[in-house]
Order: sequence, then structure tokens, then C-alpha cells
Amino acid sequence: MPKVLMKGNEVIAEAAIHAGCKNFFGYPITPQSELVAYMANRLPEIDGLFLQAESEVAAINMVYGAASAGVRVMTSSSSPGFSLKQEGVSYLAGAELPAVIVNIGRGGPGLGNIQPAQSDYFQVTKGGGHGDYYTPVLAPSTLQEIVELTKLAFDLADEYRTPVVLLGDGMLGQMMEPVEFTEEDMKVLPEKKWATTGTRGDGAPKVISSLELNDVNLENHNHTLQSKYEVIKQREVRFDTYRADDAEYMVVAYGTVSRIAKSAIDEARENGIKIGMIRPITLWPFPEKPFEEYRDKVKAFLSVEMSAGQMVEDVRLAVNGKAPVEFFGRTGGVIPNHSEVLEAIKSLAGGGQ
Amino acid sequence: MPKVLMKGNEVIAEAAIHAGCKNFFGYPITPQSELVAYMANRLPEIDGLFLQAESEVAAINMVYGAASAGVRVMTSSSSPGFSLKQEGVSYLAGAELPAVIVNIGRGGPGLGNIQPAQSDYFQVTKGGGHGDYYTPVLAPSTLQEIVELTKLAFDLADEYRTPVVLLGDGMLGQMMEPVEFTEEDMKVLPEKKWATTGTRGDGAPKVISSLELNDVNLENHNHTLQSKYEVIKQREVRFDTYRADDAEYMVVAYGTVSRIAKSAIDEARENGIKIGMIRPITLWPFPEKPFEEYRDKVKAFLSVEMSAGQMVEDVRLAVNGKAPVEFFGRTGGVIPNHSEVLEAIKSLAGGGQ
Amino acid sequence: MPKVLMKGNEVIAEAAIHAGCKNFFGYPITPQSELVAYMANRLPEIDGLFLQAESEVAAINMVYGAASAGVRVMTSSSSPGFSLKQEGVSYLAGAELPAVIVNIGRGGPGLGNIQPAQSDYFQVTKGGGHGDYYTPVLAPSTLQEIVELTKLAFDLADEYRTPVVLLGDGMLGQMMEPVEFTEEDMKVLPEKKWATTGTRGDGAPKVISSLELNDVNLENHNHTLQSKYEVIKQREVRFDTYRADDAEYMVVAYGTVSRIAKSAIDEARENGIKIGMIRPITLWPFPEKPFEEYRDKVKAFLSVEMSAGQMVEDVRLAVNGKAPVEFFGRTGGVIPNHSEVLEAIKSLAGGGQ
Amino acid sequence: MPKVLMKGNEVIAEAAIHAGCKNFFGYPITPQSELVAYMANRLPEIDGLFLQAESEVAAINMVYGAASAGVRVMTSSSSPGFSLKQEGVSYLAGAELPAVIVNIGRGGPGLGNIQPAQSDYFQVTKGGGHGDYYTPVLAPSTLQEIVELTKLAFDLADEYRTPVVLLGDGMLGQMMEPVEFTEEDMKVLPEKKWATTGTRGDGAPKVISSLELNDVNLENHNHTLQSKYEVIKQREVRFDTYRADDAEYMVVAYGTVSRIAKSAIDEARENGIKIGMIRPITLWPFPEKPFEEYRDKVKAFLSVEMSAGQMVEDVRLAVNGKAPVEFFGRTGGVIPNHSEVLEAIKSLAGGGQ
Repeated sequence: MPKVLMKGNEVIAEAAIHAGCKNFFGYPITPQSELVAYMANRLPEIDGLFLQAESEVAAINMVYGAASAGVRVMTSSSSPGFSLKQEGVSYLAGAELPAVIVNIGRGGPGLGNIQPAQSDYFQVTKGGGHGDYYTPVLAPSTLQEIVELTKLAFDLADEYRTPVVLLGDGMLGQMMEPVEFTEEDMKVLPEKKWATTGTRGDGAPKVISSLELNDVNLENHNHTLQSKYEVIKQREVRFDTYRADDAEYMVVAYGTVSRIAKSAIDEARENGIKIGMIRPITLWPFPEKPFEEYRDKVKAFLSVEMSAGQMVEDVRLAVNGKAPVEFFGRTGGVIPNHSEVLEAIKSLAGGGQ
Repeated sequence: MPKVLMKGNEVIAEAAIHAGCKNFFGYPITPQSELVAYMANRLPEIDGLFLQAESEVAAINMVYGAASAGVRVMTSSSSPGFSLKQEGVSYLAGAELPAVIVNIGRGGPGLGNIQPAQSDYFQVTKGGGHGDYYTPVLAPSTLQEIVELTKLAFDLADEYRTPVVLLGDGMLGQMMEPVEFTEEDMKVLPEKKWATTGTRGDGAPKVISSLELNDVNLENHNHTLQSKYEVIKQREVRFDTYRADDAEYMVVAYGTVSRIAKSAIDEARENGIKIGMIRPITLWPFPEKPFEEYRDKVKAFLSVEMSAGQMVEDVRLAVNGKAPVEFFGRTGGVIPNHSEVLEAIKSLAGGGQ
Repeated sequence: MPKVLMKGNEVIAEAAIHAGCKNFFGYPITPQSELVAYMANRLPEIDGLFLQAESEVAAINMVYGAASAGVRVMTSSSSPGFSLKQEGVSYLAGAELPAVIVNIGRGGPGLGNIQPAQSDYFQVTKGGGHGDYYTPVLAPSTLQEIVELTKLAFDLADEYRTPVVLLGDGMLGQMMEPVEFTEEDMKVLPEKKWATTGTRGDGAPKVISSLELNDVNLENHNHTLQSKYEVIKQREVRFDTYRADDAEYMVVAYGTVSRIAKSAIDEARENGIKIGMIRPITLWPFPEKPFEEYRDKVKAFLSVEMSAGQMVEDVRLAVNGKAPVEFFGRTGGVIPNHSEVLEAIKSLAGGGQ
Repeated sequence: MPKVLMKGNEVIAEAAIHAGCKNFFGYPITPQSELVAYMANRLPEIDGLFLQAESEVAAINMVYGAASAGVRVMTSSSSPGFSLKQEGVSYLAGAELPAVIVNIGRGGPGLGNIQPAQSDYFQVTKGGGHGDYYTPVLAPSTLQEIVELTKLAFDLADEYRTPVVLLGDGMLGQMMEPVEFTEEDMKVLPEKKWATTGTRGDGAPKVISSLELNDVNLENHNHTLQSKYEVIKQREVRFDTYRADDAEYMVVAYGTVSRIAKSAIDEARENGIKIGMIRPITLWPFPEKPFEEYRDKVKAFLSVEMSAGQMVEDVRLAVNGKAPVEFFGRTGGVIPNHSEVLEAIKSLAGGGQ
């Protein structure tokens, strides 16, 4: 198929449709409103369902309902709106319902502003809601990667019966790049025997619920969930490396920041600093393997984020004291430029010598 | 004052009133409803204000309003309800508003059940909402400690202009113990010059907001917040140790679980295992110091929680690879008994030898 | 087509589907919940959209959205739920949007009970919401008449761009009778050039709104509405008479009560009382013509209602002092039986001599 | 006390406070927002409670709660907001709870505009919500009359245990006039033995509810309500007349429109037309007596309203065919001027000759 020039938010929407998602419930919030608008426009054309809900809370609960009926369903929001959905995400996880939830992060905390930020890392990776649960979190860095990861998000959701988060930031949502959609056969979606589509009087009604009053039964259910999370950790970790093989220093960055970091790394290499990058693509499960591989080889790690320091905790856990872990970040919607990342690298390499 | 026999939930309420809190907004949810009921009964008697809100979301936003007016204000909930408040907590943090939020944790995820759990550790310590913020989290283990920590919660909230979380579980909320309230002079509350109590035409209106559209300004605001968090980390860490001095193994436990752990430790000592305990009282800031002190001395740590393993991450970060960190937990509302904790200790000591 | 035995609530739902309604937004409330359940079951089968909203308020506003897009859309509720929709009905009327709203009345005021009542006559005929508007109100008395009037409701809604109310009571909703659905060509629905279905870049966007800040413009809009209401009053009045030709006394009753009244009238005739009935089928516009015809002939009118006396006001307005107008009613869910209606008739006839 | 110059909305608020109302729950909507703002400012000063609710629906239900506790409580809104409160008003009526609800009407239907209108006459006098209930409706025409009628509203509410509506329009709310508040002894409020203020373990709990599942009991409750409404109709009708004694024609107008009508009447008198006015002060109960007195004397009535014709129905019912009833109205926020009312009078007098 030919390449088309689109906005990041629109690419998410179109990729979801290509993945067979015909149901969207949402509430507009900058900087992801183009996604909602695109869905409002496109879904009726393909006999899909778009509904702008009364609130973020209503939207996530409609997702719960649609997911229970076995259809592919998506909602999207930006940071404050995602916070409002936390109870619903915990319910989806508890009831083992597949759904894709997009979070296009913006500057916070509170109302903050509408500039890009990565300060929702904690709330998407540590289970921002209540109870012991995790959701796979996918963090694309280019619009073409959005196409792949949005498809993957729906597949993971269905395979593991879990909500999946697609995490971007305002920069990714607003930028335009040419993308290519591959043909997908939207009709061969996985069968969902558990879906509550009605018994038509044949057999006992299926029940989807996260309620379990008996503590032993609820613990057994938690064991099931934790076993599932272990399988996901085994199988579904995704990451990328850049000039890592001979690296003495290692940047860690994800999403749009990894693109800025690449420029800085190239420039640092020209300055004689042997530096590479680990780019987590799944933020949960966090890619521990490459850190185990490199933590004894490199002199120091540098986590670069558009936050006050959140992923850096997972980096520290993965490095486990085997090497220094430093941090460089900008917040409040300020996008780091490659020269200040370069300075941070120089400082790291200087400090590490 | 004489000791009185009360339920944990009621002790929180009465301690809040002793701390000068005359404003409560909430929504009933088991297992913390006695707290709401107590406030409904008591506050009108002392010319205070109790309001049962339309929803958890409404309640936390009423807290925002009352806090803006400079009064001491509290809300309380249990796990799913706390998730719904996440956006509001981020707003309180962003607007630097003092408030006390009680979370009496229950089994999850989702609707779960109404038995005790500690599986909200992540959502209260990692900033369950959006943006870079933390809230001090206090975790009492006895009803008498509730009295102290509730008072402390209000004082920290006012001193640092921050929401503070008081974290318990259904066991703590429902148990009865004799407690003693000390006389507090409720009238000498700290003056709040920033409060929006009206200018009466004198001077420019004060504004309380978490909105800051300019990214550089919002980053500066984040620097202010982060500096405040550094100060809190310096000054406000609280923890307790138990038979730690000569310990070769160390349990880490908080809240009600620490009481069960004590019995298990005593019994383990009788079995010849030199084991002690670090009990974090502030979950954020997490007490790193005692781990730095003991991590080179002990053979292994064992985090015991009523969760699938959440605090254990902070333990690993604090131990930083200097010693093995194991985990024992029960979930879904199952309370670990001291003999299974003892077994876990024996297994740790066996495995560590 | 063969006759099928169905519940009244289900007949409304199936008749709506026959009328080409593929969109339903609602919230369950007794005694109309079978309607919601039927739609939840049937609409997905025909590629329609069923959505259980967060609240009655949400449901009516979703109806507003769907109606704006030009599709046939329905919501339904019972008395307290209908009250909550009043703002939305006024918005639909102000924006001239076609929609069908079902009200299956129950005992009130307040929470009341779930037994049949006609005490919502005022709120459906006098514009229960704000501003100068009316909605056509259709009141079927049999399940077969439901089939006709539900179809008519959608046709009137589209023809006059107005919300239309279908008013029943719990008895009508719960009773079972054989009904026959005629084949309808659901595809030839009226074209709606005003619908906001997107311009695809071609021409100026259409706007649906009830906002008009300029008072003169809003008055002009009100003139348009009032002219439309005049046309509806001219063309769309529907009523039935029973044994009216030689009547000396006249019962006025609608809906299920008219069926009870018929038995009483037959018995009264056997007792020598020349009595007939006017049965309004449209409650708004109220059928004034038959009253103008009979008010000089009959000795007295008797309005029989399951209310404390509401339609009786419209009867008095239509009779305009030309004859006495008496009232007999039961309330709170009590269904009048034919013998007490007969007594009321005897008392009327005795008193009128 | 000295006269003070205030806005109408503020006069309502201050008069409520003079009447002992220390509890206000509301939601801002133009053109009554000054009332809310005034309460927000004043109530904290007198240890009262002001709460801006999450929505109009929340506000009216908070009124229900406060009224149940026996305190004097008020809410206020404008037309669309009042529609949203209809369910709550029906609940207050059903539960026989005293409360004062202010409606400062604006142009409609739907969102309309923020100019003055009287097009909520139906929804306040005919029980805009479900079930058989009425609320006394007071319609002041001057700011000084607001002082009296606001006090009266609270007294009627308490005496008859009923919600009472104070109906104004944007003009009345926004105009400024000097008013005088008389000293009221706010402390001697009527005792409310039925209030649910807690039993303190002494006796059975009191219950406030509008639920009555048994139909016969609910009908009995309706008889109680209807009997109460009869008593109110006997005792509490209020109206005023102007130059009515020798009138051959009669204007009917209420609220601000009656002031415009007076000028027109004076001018008509100078033109030799013997015309007077009946001004209903209570819209419900509607003053039927003066119509019974004058309907045989005058040649015609003219209802003048800022609506498309609503009160005119009650005028027709009261006149009962004994004289022609004409209507003149402006809508959409247009305020009739005295010269067009004069023209309407001339046309009436011409047509009546």
C-alpha cells in the first residue's frame, strides 16, 4: 500500500481500525483530540460505533461493557483523563478483559498544560489503580511503529485477556510522518468463547466480573493473574538497541525522547564517547535482559526522560547496583533538545572516567 | 485522658477532629464506612461540616475546594474509590494544597472483596495519578499509632502544602483497641496566607491553580515541587526496627502485617534464627537509611506483604543489589498467619545459609 | 404476518425496530426494563446500537447526539427517570431534533412504587422542561395500538423535527396480548438534509444547536416553533369515541384506563344511563374538537384517570364552562376497577339530573 | 433598618439569610450567579454552609439531605438547571420536605440565552416532575417584595412541609433597587420533630422517604398530599389588583411584567380605556377568586407574559368561559415595552366593543 502523510493521533486511530477495532468510547482532551475526531468520522463509515461519553469514567466503563461482549474496543485520553480511568483499568484487569487504552501524555501534575510529557510512566507501569495488576505498555517512537504496536496492542489484549496501554506523548500525537498500512484481514479475529454475547436459552449464562467475596478464591484468581503476568514477562518483552555493542556508556530512553537521544549519541560518538542506547518498547514488562547483558560492561547508564525521573527506577532495579545510573530529564512540557542531552552524556562520561 | 475502646476507622476520624479537622467529604465504601458514619455523627456536633458527596470524584474535588480555603479537610475511601480520586490527588499535588486522604485497602483488583489488603502500595507511593508528584504516605500499625500519625498527617500537609495519604487496611479499620487521645489545642492551626478566603476588595485576588500553559513556567513549578520532595525525604522519613541489632536476616513489613511478623520473628529467634525487622512508617519517603545500614550486615531481606509484591521493589532499590531480597505475600484479602511467615523466614534462613 | 404474543414493553421495542429505529440509549428502571432488555438483545442482531448509559441524563443527551446525525433513535424510562430527562427534552425541542421518548408511568411522587400510574400527564403535555415547547404525546390503549403509534411516533418526529413522547403505564408495559406487525420498508426513511453527518470538506458545516444569544433571533426561533405547533394542532389530533352519538354523559379516559371505562360504560348503558366516551389518543395536541361538538349536548363530563386529576384540566379548558366536568381517579399505583368507575358514572348521572 | 441598594439576586440571598437559612447548595448559571456568589461569600461569615455542587442534580439532592436534617436550606438555578432538578423536586414533595428553590428564568427552550423570560410557568406550577404534586410558587415583582416573599417561602415550606419555588426572571435578578430588611429573630425557627437528626440510641430511628411499595399505602399518602394542597389553596392564595374596581377590561400579569403593564394601564386610562390588572403573587395556588369576582363584570381579559402563552391557561380555567381571554407575549428574552402592551390593550378594547 502507498505511504500516506498523517498525524500521529490519526495513525493510532487508523491502525486500530486496521486491527479490527470498530468500537471507540472516549472523551476529548488535548493533545489527543484528533484521535477522537478521526474515530468519530471514520467509524460510522465502516459500520463501527463511536460514542463520545459523558466523562472519562463513563468512557472506560463503556469499554468494559464492549470488551465483555468480545469486540475489539479502544479508548484514549491524556494524562488527567487517564487518571480518571484508573478504577476502570483495574476492573478490566480484574475481569481479564481485552481492551486498548491510549494515553498521549501531557505536562502535569494537575491540570498542567498541553505540551508533551512522559510523566505518566509510573501510573501506566505500576498499575495506577488498586490491586495487584499490570498492563502491557507499548511505547512507539515513530508513526510507522505506531502502526505495528497498535496492531500488537490488540493482539496482546486478546491473547492474554488484558487491557493494554499504548503510551505516547503530545509530540508523537501531533507530529506528521508518512506511514504505510499493511493489509490486515480484519475478519479473522480470535474467537472469544468467554464473551457474554447471550446464551439464547442454551446453557448457563456466562458471567464477567471482578467481584469475588471469598478471600481464598480471590487469592486463587490473583495467582492466575500473576502467572499470566509471568508468561507475558517471558514472552512479550520488546526493546531496541542503538550502537550498543561496544558502548562504554548507555542511554536509556523510550518514545520520542529516544529519537532526540539518537542524535545526541551520534554527536557524542563523533566526540569520541563510546555510547549506545537501550530503548524499551514495552515499558511493562520492562526489558531486564539487555541490562543484565550490559550492566557489567558499561561504566554508567543515563536515563533520559521527559519527567522528573520515573523510568530511572526500573533502570536501577534492572542494573541492581552493578553500575551507576544517572538521570537527565525535562518536565512541564519542555522537550529536551539534542545538545542538552549531549551535555548530559558528556557529563556522564566525564564523571564516569 | 482516659483510654477508650474504639474501632480503627473511628480512631482515624476522632484523631482527625483532635487535629482540628472540621471538614469531611466522602462516599461510603466498605471496609472504611465507619469512618464516614462517625464523621457524619460527630462533625455537626462541633459545628463542622460533613458532606456525603455524589461520588468519589465529587468528594475529592470538594476537598480541593475546602483546602483552597485554608481549612483542615479530610476524605477517605477504600481501594476502588481511591483509584477514582487519582486525578484529584494529582490536582491537589499540583496546586500544593494540604489535605489528608485515607485509604483503607481491600482485596483487588477490580471490585474484588472487602477483606484487608496492601495491594495499593504502588498507587499511593508512586503517584497513582498523572505527572511528577509524590504524597507522603503514613502507615500505622496500631490504633494508638493512628492517633499520632493522623495528627502528623495534618501537620505534614500544612507544613509542606501537600496531600498526605494515611494508608491502612480492612483489618486495621475494623479492629478494636484501647486508645488515648492527647489534648490538642485545635485553635492554633498554622496560618495560611495563601488561602483563597476572599480579599474583601483589598489587594489582588489570590489564585489556586494547577494550570500553567507555559512549559518553562510549568517546569519551574515542577522544580519547586521536586525540591520540596527532597526536603521531605531529608526530614520526614520515619521507620521502626525490631530486634535488628544483631540480625542476620531482616523482615520488612508495614502496617498490620508488621504485627504478625513480630510474632513470627519472636518464634524464629526461639528457633535460633537471628532475624529482625525494619518497619517503614513512611512508605513515601521510603526509609532508605536503615537498608543502607543493614544491607552489608545481613544475609538476606524478606519483604512480607498482603500483596503480590509491591513494596519489595522499594526494598530492592534500597538494598541496591547488596543482598538477596525475597518476598512472601498473601493476596485477595487473605491475612498471612504468623506460622506461614515463620515458614517463609525458615526458608529464607535455610536458603541463605 | 402471524400474530405473536408479547409483553407491552417488548412490543414498543419491536415496533420501534420495525419503524427503522436502530439506535437506543437508556437506563433500566422498573416497570419498563423489558424494553431496555429487548433492545439490548435485538439491536446487535440487526447491526443496530444499544447502549446502557451511565444515567438518565447521559441517555437523553446521547439521544440528542444520535438525532443530530439523522438516525432514528429512541430512549425509554419511567416517571422519575423521565423527570431527569426534562432538560434534554427541552434541548431536543429547541434544536428541533426528532426522537422518540417512551415513558411507562409508575406511582409517585418521588421514588413512589412500581405500579401503574398516569400522574405524568402534566410533565409530558405541558412541557415538563423549561421554555415554550410542546411534544406530541401518543397514548396507546392496546398492544396492537402500540404497534401503530410507535410507528407514528417516529414519523411525526421526522416530519416535524420534534421529540415525540409515547406514554404508557406499568399495566400496559407488563400485559401480554397477541399483536401483528405489518411489514415496513425500513430502508426508505425520510432524507434529513439538516443532519450533521459531516461535510467531507464540501460546503459549510451544518450546526445543530439550541443556543441563540440574540433575543430577537431567539424570539424568531420561538415563532417558528409555535407555528409548527399550530400545524401539528391542525393536522395531528387523534382521538376515538365510544357509544358517544346519543350520550347524555361523557367519560374521558386514555390509555389502559379507557379499557376499564368501556366495561363500566357498557354496564351503565345496561342500567339505562346514556353514557359514552371520548378517548384522547394524542394527549398533546389535546383533541378539542370532540369536546366542542359534545359540550352543548351532554349533561356532564367525567374525567377518569390514574392520577389525582391532571387531564381534567385540559377537559375543562376544552369544555370551557359549557358543562360540568367531574373527576374520578385512583393514585399510587391503584388501578381503578370497572365497578368503582360505574359508581362514579352513576353518581355523575344522579348528580346531573 | 436603613435601605440598601442591591441587585435582585443578592436580595434573595440576603433575605434567605434573614429568614434563618444557613445552608445553600447550588451550581452557577447565568442570570442568577450573583445569588450563588453572594451565598459563597456570606454564609461562611455566619457559620453557615455554602457548597457548590458537582451538578444541578447533585445540588437538589444535597438540599434533600439538609432538609431531612431539619435545617432551612435553599438552592437556586435558572431554567435549564431547574429542569435538571425536577426529579429532586418531586422527591422533596413526595417526602414532604421543606426547601426553597429559586428559579430565575431565562430564554428557552434548550440552551436558549441569558435574557429574562417567564416561560417556566408550566414547569413550576404544574409539577414539572413526575407524580401528583404541587409546590407553592411565589412571584415577586419588586426587590422589596423579594424580601417579604423569600421570608414567606421559608415559612410556607416549614408550615406545610413542602418545597416552595421563588420564581423570578433575569430582569428581576439583575436590576438594582433600594430595599429594607426588617429585623428577624432567626433563632426561633419552628421545631421539626420529624427531622432525622439522630436518635442517640433513644427510640426508633426516624425515616424520611418517598418510597412506598404498597399501592394502597401510596394512595393514602397521595390523599394526605392532596388534602394539604387543598388547605394551601384555601389559605395561601396571594394576589394584588390595580385599578380594578371599575375596570371593563383586565390585564393579568405577574413579576416584572406586571410593572410594565402598570405603565401601559395608566396610559390606557388616559386614553379612556377602563382597564385594571390582577397580579397573581402565588402562581400556585392560582388566585381564582378575583377572576370569579370580575369575570362577569369585565368585557375581556388579557394575559401578558414573557412566554408564548402559559399562565393564560390558568386564566382561562379561572374565567371558565365567562369572558374572552386574550394573550400578548414576547419570548426569547425580549422584554415587552409598555407601548406594545398599550397597543395590545387598545386592540383588546377595540375588539371587545
